[in-house]
Amino acid sequence: MKKTIRSLSVPLVVWCALMLTCVSVFADADPLPSWNPGPHKNAIITFVQAVTVKSSAKFVPAAERIATFDNDGTLWGEQPMYVQLVFALDRVKAMAPQHPEWTTKEPFASVLKGDLKAVMAGGERALLEIMMATHAGMSTEAFDQIVKDWIATAKHPKTGRPYTEMVYQPMLELLTYLRASGFKTYIVSGGGIEFMRPWTERVYGVPPEQVVGSSIKTQFVMQDGKPALMRLPEVNFIDDKDGKPVGIQQYIGRRPIAASGNSDGDLQMLQWTAAGPGARFCLYVHHTDAEREYAYDRTSAIGKLDLGLDEAGKRGWTVVDMKNDWKVIYPPKR
Amino acid sequence: MKKTIRSLSVPLVVWCALMLTCVSVFADADPLPSWNPGPHKNAIITFVQAVTVKSSAKFVPAAERIATFDNDGTLWGEQPMYVQLVFALDRVKAMAPQHPEWTTKEPFASVLKGDLKAVMAGGERALLEIMMATHAGMSTEAFDQIVKDWIATAKHPKTGRPYTEMVYQPMLELLTYLRASGFKTYIVSGGGIEFMRPWTERVYGVPPEQVVGSSIKTQFVMQDGKPALMRLPEVNFIDDKDGKPVGIQQYIGRRPIAASGNSDGDLQMLQWTAAGPGARFCLYVHHTDAEREYAYDRTSAIGKLDLGLDEAGKRGWTVVDMKNDWKVIYPPKR
Repeated sequence: MKKTIRSLSVPLVVWCALMLTCVSVFADADPLPSWNPGPHKNAIITFVQAVTVKSSAKFVPAAERIATFDNDGTLWGEQPMYVQLVFALDRVKAMAPQHPEWTTKEPFASVLKGDLKAVMAGGERALLEIMMATHAGMSTEAFDQIVKDWIATAKHPKTGRPYTEMVYQPMLELLTYLRASGFKTYIVSGGGIEFMRPWTERVYGVPPEQVVGSSIKTQFVMQDGKPALMRLPEVNFIDDKDGKPVGIQQYIGRRPIAASGNSDGDLQMLQWTAAGPGARFCLYVHHTDAEREYAYDRTSAIGKLDLGLDEAGKRGWTVVDMKNDWKVIYPPKR
Repeated sequence: MKKTIRSLSVPLVVWCALMLTCVSVFADADPLPSWNPGPHKNAIITFVQAVTVKSSAKFVPAAERIATFDNDGTLWGEQPMYVQLVFALDRVKAMAPQHPEWTTKEPFASVLKGDLKAVMAGGERALLEIMMATHAGMSTEAFDQIVKDWIATAKHPKTGRPYTEMVYQPMLELLTYLRASGFKTYIVSGGGIEFMRPWTERVYGVPPEQVVGSSIKTQFVMQDGKPALMRLPEVNFIDDKDGKPVGIQQYIGRRPIAASGNSDGDLQMLQWTAAGPGARFCLYVHHTDAEREYAYDRTSAIGKLDLGLDEAGKRGWTVVDMKNDWKVIYPPKR
């Protein structure tokens, strides 16, 4: 017996040494390699450690570790135009042969002529008309396929890269880091929920059931004995501003302990998150990098960040300076 | 070296033997001990094996293993009255001191007199008025606490047991078995989403974010600089019949591969589930046990199962016969 233990002791020592090495490699590995050292990176890591270390006074059970992320301008780019609007305009062009009346009917005529200024002059009403014409009138399954086909080929006008590669590498790392720390990561976006679901799992690791977004109504119908969900040209829910906490409660039913956004449209989500008890983490992505991305905030038509920037300052939220905090903006080309 | 291997070999053999014993214990353990042997129990196990065994032609990746369950009459009892209606009537009585006008105003006057027949004579309109008066007008957090306080003390009129113990033990085992097989289990109920969320995790192991239900609208407000979500007396969504597939798409964004219900209100959910590709499992709980529970189906005012029973027969869905399929109805008393 003694012999057995002695002869076992050698491999055991090796085994223990190996385990310790592994543990220390994991502990030393930087979970956010694309983030420059500094107070913002520190704030993230300090928060995650506070809520995950069991002996911490701020420990939060895994089930309650909910983190929500805006999408446009927070996880992927939104300049020079919301990606979903590009999609809608492309769809008008693709659908035009079936709609000869569009050549003379606004706002479609201007879209087909490529006169975006005239389209925008039509205001919200024109945009809503374009959205409904391109997003409704088909089954949920058909729309899913339309989105998948479009996103597989569409390219950003400035970089020529697919939109799904115009995502922010440092934010991908934050998503991964939070999930590795027991968080459930959700998207809570003003964008269309069914425009995001077909690709968020592949691109962000966020499954369809963890996407909250704006929606149109759907109707259950039987077509030749086969059930379908038809998309109706009627707004169901707008997941923006005041709507974000409403959407969070409706879909998740728990208050997040961490939330990230980039515009005034995310302010109420951050306020709702910050107002809960215990440790809280609120982050604004501030678009400060005109060279590698775009620089915009208080006066931008897209992703305006004005009230939010003031409130973040007052409340000590983490305001990420894209230019100085991020080593890279996008993931390497595939 | 040879010596080390030889001396290691003894514990290794023991280790392997232990592992094999464990594996075989797990394989032999009955995942559904409260289900009597027979075709219905077999149908469940055959389906689960078909979608989880990697070499199976019907294998489904874990991420797509979504199972939805109706609540009233499927996971817990709904006789002699929906539990949420009992809650609403109790709330009218509790709130009456703050509403002196209710002593003469219908349907509240009849509720306070205990004249349920007169309340029911008021039809849907009376019920809606009672629901709105008792479910709206407070914050989501306040309502959560009201539900928690009520469910902790309310008792079933026939058995005297808490409602959270009037759940079906065989269905608890089915939930556990599916989760152990990599499924995400969801509740998809006509009941109020915020009436279920405060206790579904404790009772069913289903977290708030996996509960789909009917809802009223909420509004984000600032009260003395603190954000709150106020519950408004306005219907937002009815998660019943045609609404169930709509709710499933809205909340989950994937079609379930398994669904369980007990009434015609679940028929569209089962149709929607059954119509997808690959292996599918649809289950109806048929209330056939007048002695241990209640016996009702085609003509019942609560939980009517008529069209669904016909369709289940035609399509070969599993129709559970509570009297003969279930060894016990409720879990043992705590």
